[in-house]
Amino acid sequence: MLGKVALEEAFALPRFAEKTRWWASMFAVNPEKHTVEINDITDIRIKYMDQYGVGFQILSYTAPGVQDIFDKKEAEALAAEINDYVAEMIKQHPDRLGAFATLSMHDPQNAAAELRRCVTQYGFKGALVNDTQRAGPDGEDMIFYDAAEWDVFWSTVTELDVPFYLHPRNPTGTMYEKLWAARKWLVGPPLSFAQGVSLHLLGMVTNGVFDRHPKLQIVIGHLGEHLPFDLWRINHWFEDVKKPLGLKETCKKTIREYFAQNIWITTSGHFSTPTLHFCLTEVGPDRILFSIDYPFEKYEDACEWYDKAEINEVDRKKIGRDNAKRLFKLGEFKDCNA
Amino acid sequence: MLGKVALEEAFALPRFAEKTRWWASMFAVNPEKHTVEINDITDIRIKYMDQYGVGFQILSYTAPGVQDIFDKKEAEALAAEINDYVAEMIKQHPDRLGAFATLSMHDPQNAAAELRRCVTQYGFKGALVNDTQRAGPDGEDMIFYDAAEWDVFWSTVTELDVPFYLHPRNPTGTMYEKLWAARKWLVGPPLSFAQGVSLHLLGMVTNGVFDRHPKLQIVIGHLGEHLPFDLWRINHWFEDVKKPLGLKETCKKTIREYFAQNIWITTSGHFSTPTLHFCLTEVGPDRILFSIDYPFEKYEDACEWYDKAEINEVDRKKIGRDNAKRLFKLGEFKDCNA
Amino acid sequence: MLGKVALEEAFALPRFAEKTRWWASMFAVNPEKHTVEINDITDIRIKYMDQYGVGFQILSYTAPGVQDIFDKKEAEALAAEINDYVAEMIKQHPDRLGAFATLSMHDPQNAAAELRRCVTQYGFKGALVNDTQRAGPDGEDMIFYDAAEWDVFWSTVTELDVPFYLHPRNPTGTMYEKLWAARKWLVGPPLSFAQGVSLHLLGMVTNGVFDRHPKLQIVIGHLGEHLPFDLWRINHWFEDVKKPLGLKETCKKTIREYFAQNIWITTSGHFSTPTLHFCLTEVGPDRILFSIDYPFEKYEDACEWYDKAEINEVDRKKIGRDNAKRLFKLGEFKDCNA
Amino acid sequence: MLGKVALEEAFALPRFAEKTRWWASMFAVNPEKHTVEINDITDIRIKYMDQYGVGFQILSYTAPGVQDIFDKKEAEALAAEINDYVAEMIKQHPDRLGAFATLSMHDPQNAAAELRRCVTQYGFKGALVNDTQRAGPDGEDMIFYDAAEWDVFWSTVTELDVPFYLHPRNPTGTMYEKLWAARKWLVGPPLSFAQGVSLHLLGMVTNGVFDRHPKLQIVIGHLGEHLPFDLWRINHWFEDVKKPLGLKETCKKTIREYFAQNIWITTSGHFSTPTLHFCLTEVGPDRILFSIDYPFEKYEDACEWYDKAEINEVDRKKIGRDNAKRLFKLGEFKDCNA
Repeated sequence: MLGKVALEEAFALPRFAEKTRWWASMFAVNPEKHTVEINDITDIRIKYMDQYGVGFQILSYTAPGVQDIFDKKEAEALAAEINDYVAEMIKQHPDRLGAFATLSMHDPQNAAAELRRCVTQYGFKGALVNDTQRAGPDGEDMIFYDAAEWDVFWSTVTELDVPFYLHPRNPTGTMYEKLWAARKWLVGPPLSFAQGVSLHLLGMVTNGVFDRHPKLQIVIGHLGEHLPFDLWRINHWFEDVKKPLGLKETCKKTIREYFAQNIWITTSGHFSTPTLHFCLTEVGPDRILFSIDYPFEKYEDACEWYDKAEINEVDRKKIGRDNAKRLFKLGEFKDCNA
Repeated sequence: MLGKVALEEAFALPRFAEKTRWWASMFAVNPEKHTVEINDITDIRIKYMDQYGVGFQILSYTAPGVQDIFDKKEAEALAAEINDYVAEMIKQHPDRLGAFATLSMHDPQNAAAELRRCVTQYGFKGALVNDTQRAGPDGEDMIFYDAAEWDVFWSTVTELDVPFYLHPRNPTGTMYEKLWAARKWLVGPPLSFAQGVSLHLLGMVTNGVFDRHPKLQIVIGHLGEHLPFDLWRINHWFEDVKKPLGLKETCKKTIREYFAQNIWITTSGHFSTPTLHFCLTEVGPDRILFSIDYPFEKYEDACEWYDKAEINEVDRKKIGRDNAKRLFKLGEFKDCNA
Repeated sequence: MLGKVALEEAFALPRFAEKTRWWASMFAVNPEKHTVEINDITDIRIKYMDQYGVGFQILSYTAPGVQDIFDKKEAEALAAEINDYVAEMIKQHPDRLGAFATLSMHDPQNAAAELRRCVTQYGFKGALVNDTQRAGPDGEDMIFYDAAEWDVFWSTVTELDVPFYLHPRNPTGTMYEKLWAARKWLVGPPLSFAQGVSLHLLGMVTNGVFDRHPKLQIVIGHLGEHLPFDLWRINHWFEDVKKPLGLKETCKKTIREYFAQNIWITTSGHFSTPTLHFCLTEVGPDRILFSIDYPFEKYEDACEWYDKAEINEVDRKKIGRDNAKRLFKLGEFKDCNA
Repeated sequence: MLGKVALEEAFALPRFAEKTRWWASMFAVNPEKHTVEINDITDIRIKYMDQYGVGFQILSYTAPGVQDIFDKKEAEALAAEINDYVAEMIKQHPDRLGAFATLSMHDPQNAAAELRRCVTQYGFKGALVNDTQRAGPDGEDMIFYDAAEWDVFWSTVTELDVPFYLHPRNPTGTMYEKLWAARKWLVGPPLSFAQGVSLHLLGMVTNGVFDRHPKLQIVIGHLGEHLPFDLWRINHWFEDVKKPLGLKETCKKTIREYFAQNIWITTSGHFSTPTLHFCLTEVGPDRILFSIDYPFEKYEDACEWYDKAEINEVDRKKIGRDNAKRLFKLGEFKDCNA
């Protein structure tokens, strides 16, 4: 279909090109191509969009990004630099390119302030954050955003009425050494990414973030980071066992209600029709959004799959474009009516 | 249906009743009932079996069990005690009750020897182990069985031609403190269990255990600990990205082939028909086995669900009984032909 | 869920009670109960609605009804009588009961006029017609509404902006003798109903009714009278073979587009979750409507199934109520917001 | 996959080439190509098989074939001619080509005798018959095989232990004029085929053919001619309503049991993955068989779809080959182990 919208689409800062190339060498079959593609904002990218029927995309800074920087000042400075950079780069293409704010998550007040700046000054569509923020003197601490001190941040997110994309980052430090170093092939998309994000999101659920911020809209990628598979089992334990034991103090609704009211999933990096069908049943087409995960994934793989995926035509338009238009209040863009 | 077989069914040692009761108080709505049920082997249990159409079950020692004991000698002594105990308890009921060996996993040679003793001396149907073995002076080490030194153990498993059930245990130590303490409602069935087992099993896949032991049969519970949901995504990264980067050194087949040749999933604790349907597509009915997870789950919930689950009658018999009869070489048992 | 809407809910005229009882004796396990229930409009019915969470229903005259009457004048008189009767009966319950117009389909102009009368005078929600109209001196003719002379009727339907429910009726005459008499158990819901309606609806598709009346909204029951199962196959032959051979003259869109723009399916009499899941994929939740088929089906069977059917909560509300509110422009009714 | 088996693969008699070409002109985009392909037995066909990984196929005479010939003697002579012809043509290729007997169905005794001749003399794999037999002086009669006089035939089928493929044919005579002439685009695969076969097969079910011949194995194409979609609804009416009213006299088992014990479905002409998934749930992979429907369908469409269809690898081999090997007791053939 024409006029698709894509939401988990990465860019990098050109001044880090050498580091980007080294990083790419660890996971990309063609690191050079990857480096060129991720550093491009408007040329290769828009050619792909035109070729594969993507009308609009929302850019985000690549993982682990600022969440890997455990020095607070450095992290905050880099976030601002990234936001200024991408705002400048996309401003000639308001009908094709949007951006998510990059945020240092060392401090809820500062994160909220930077988000506000990006949304009000630049018209950014929300924020994308790469799981926990590394912190502490040796980078061993992990800041989760499910504790009460983050309420000030979530209040700003809902006040600004923008979604927050909870993206994965790699495990680091002790966690990496204990669990992942000896099974490195599982780091990233095959396993570690989903484990990190699903823990973080369910932490937000059980620690009451959505009860305190009922309008909060969180987006997760990869068809839901395993969670749709276990909704029955999670619900069974939450409602039948853990609510009686005290979970009801922080978490008044059911997991299925949070998925119906607060959570969105995207197709980024998960181009499987049977899994999409299963998500139609468990999550529903009104809460699913097309995405690619470029340049980690190819336009070709994502778009040729999606355009021919065996689903009904009403839901194809919703998932491919209309849900995103509604969620991000997008105006008209290329091929929008196609 | 009558004559079902169930495989993830726990018992405890009565001499630990006080500890069992304390443990139960942390997750059971009725800890006293739980304690009575888990300490019973032949009375309450067989009444439930008769009432809900379970012809045969294979018992296993409750988690975390021996995997929580980081002193090697203590762990090995306890495993032997448990095996002797359950062998004695079930010997009057060979047509209703079988057992999995409990193993200390501190040492591959010793684990193999104890498994051999249980299979040859007692007729046990295989082993059930609770994820990684705690070890080290302070219990902070975690032994995974996916490294080369465990080949001697896996060789014994395949020589004895018995399956190995990889069951979860709770996170402990640093891992618990960093990830789970602040989001305790996620410990166990809602999330941590699947994260542990899926990491361990995929570690075995990528570290080449199944390539070196192609006849090895591993069983995992809870409809596959999230893995069926991500087979497309795992396969995509393994084949398209990680094989070119070197994964092919240890892992020659595809993830879908390991699931077709080496891995079984059970319904324990996951009584969801849509998820079962999805697993029919992604895993197939020849590799799915009915189970309950008693006494953490109720016979009523598991059996009333399964007996009426909307699947065809050929697969109902396979998943409910015939696959298990074949895998565990079970003889005749009650209501077997029903 | 509370506040469900139901659409394929039959009543009869009390003056035909004896005939109704005789008719019921051929298919009802309890013909007496059936006769009482179908002749009741406001008492038993509203009690069931209250008990099972149905906020609003749209009544229709039971099949074969006026479509069985091959004398035109008699048919038209009866239709008017039925419409006057039900309008009178429901007028005290505008927040619980609506009605579909009953129409004689001997003459397009007259059918259009009677529909207009019912919609404008009585506020009826559309029409429900029982497949082909028997006609001819011996009742051997069958009038289909897919020919050009019916355009005047469809123009009125779309001008009035109301849906048309295409309900089955039994085979009669030669057709009955040749195909069904020797296999009488297949008459009705097991087979003949779906065969009749699917032929009639696809006749409308291929003869261009929807191309000439692109706003026309047709509702069919029983999860789509087999058609969702074959959308791929129908589309394959229409697009790849029959369009090149000439089908494009009358039928410019694809079958999937007609299902996305003109056709609705209801759950009446088909309380199967796997089939509903399949329809979520092939038709989509925005085009599915809850219904019962009372008193041929029980409130208990329909509502207990639907309320617990394993689907996401967003779609449960749409299919259960919100789609119907939108399609039929319903105002507030009991438990509407529940 | 290599070594697939295909079962609904048509040939014609070259002496009817002119008639075949005329017939093809009514439904084939390229009638000339169709005529060449259907008259070829061993050349074009085996090239396609090699190219698309079909190891073995079972040939059958094209529809409507002998079922269209209402003169009994003519029909019986033609059937014998066809059987002799194809036996001669395939005898050099026993590892690639098998055949279904073509039968005149005017007389149960004669049909049984011809089937016996074909199976014992030629090694045919069973029979394929095109729905009802036209009969009577003007071809207006339709012989169904669900009446008691056909028991002698079904006894022979089960004694010979071969399957019977119930294939569609076009509506004729009055039936055609009344229902189909004004909506000709629905004749054949889009609708009329499934309506004919589903009526005939359910007639056999309800008239007790499977109760009197419990070993009888019937194969139907096109993923089950709509029936899997309605198993719940059929079962609901048979068991809850029609059994109490008398259906139990002839039909003691449930419709799901007949599907588990007597009925097979093939993928011929229905290359839809969502529908296949649905059939995995409702029918099960042990009762589904790959087929193409060549030359009405293309090898390319069938095989490229099937080889990549998103199903697990265990079931792909079963449906693609192993079920057919078991059902038809096939020996080794090309690429059988691939």
